[in-house]
Amino acid sequence: MKLLEQIITQQGKHLGNGILKVDSFMNHQIDPNLMVEIGAEFSRAFFDSGVTRILTAETSGIAPALAAGMSLRVPVVFARKKKPVTMQDPLTESAPSHTKGGMVDLSVSSEYLLSGDRIVIIDDFLASAQTIVALAKLVKQTGAELVGIGAVIEKIYSGGRALLEPFNVPIHSLARIEGFEGEKILLASATSPR
Amino acid sequence: MKLLEQIITQQGKHLGNGILKVDSFMNHQIDPNLMVEIGAEFSRAFFDSGVTRILTAETSGIAPALAAGMSLRVPVVFARKKKPVTMQDPLTESAPSHTKGGMVDLSVSSEYLLSGDRIVIIDDFLASAQTIVALAKLVKQTGAELVGIGAVIEKIYSGGRALLEPFNVPIHSLARIEGFEGEKILLASATSPR
Repeated sequence: MKLLEQIITQQGKHLGNGILKVDSFMNHQIDPNLMVEIGAEFSRAFFDSGVTRILTAETSGIAPALAAGMSLRVPVVFARKKKPVTMQDPLTESAPSHTKGGMVDLSVSSEYLLSGDRIVIIDDFLASAQTIVALAKLVKQTGAELVGIGAVIEKIYSGGRALLEPFNVPIHSLARIEGFEGEKILLASATSPR
Repeated sequence: MKLLEQIITQQGKHLGNGILKVDSFMNHQIDPNLMVEIGAEFSRAFFDSGVTRILTAETSGIAPALAAGMSLRVPVVFARKKKPVTMQDPLTESAPSHTKGGMVDLSVSSEYLLSGDRIVIIDDFLASAQTIVALAKLVKQTGAELVGIGAVIEKIYSGGRALLEPFNVPIHSLARIEGFEGEKILLASATSPR
């Protein structure tokens, strides 16, 4: 996705150790024009999947998942890290926490993921894929069918895609990063092998 | 806002003690059609304010703030409860936590709230208004100008609006709840005094 790649090149910052700062357009500030385009791109990718609901995890997955949901006109469910008092019949899976270290529980209510649903998981990053795997396990718990996985930015060097291949669904990332040369971000070309 | 009031009446649940469950369309699952309309409504309300950025707090404020940002085409900044490793020069204010009890820190990077900005704060609820007051203090810390406050649902019975009046900006809530009679949700009519 050209616009996204341009913005990553212009605004993304490699902080070292493979940590990519995208706070200016996705993870702290959200660029509305970019997000409209991201929603449209996911919509094109998953339009034919028969998706009935999108699943993501709070916090940074919400913006791209909502943009896709608004474009596809399907509801978006976000897994919660703290079970609110209002949550009934929670289903829970664990994933590593990026901010706190250790593990964090991701919970969804079985009220909003139904056995007949066709689910696309959307998240901001595909890196280690641990969060997405936890979300896929939540889908399985409900008896719904996983029909696709979307990530805004894939960190190819983290190797998470291999963990997702057993789910046997299309995996669509909008920009793919091969690595870094100092501060320079090395984007994979659209045609390079995955 | 008629559509929102209908959905609150149909899907909202009073769990007792003034706790309103809106998980089916806003706080756990997000209704995409409703969110498009919410964005349009906030856009109409704040179009003439000269808003340059929208500020909200994670997690549940992100969806309505993003919908408004997509409609107004201005960036959305969400204050973080955990400072990510990528955050530079954080500014912090405290607000009571709804999920954990006690206080929670809300942090924004001074990179994305600038002294010349005209800020509209948008959140899911206006209840005690403590979160919105903390966000308004963050705006003040940056030297930006607060030009409006928007909430999807106002719990009139919590009385938070009085705390916001000293900021002397338009306060726009899309649905206002006077209270409950058992399970029945009592909506204030559009013309009733605030």
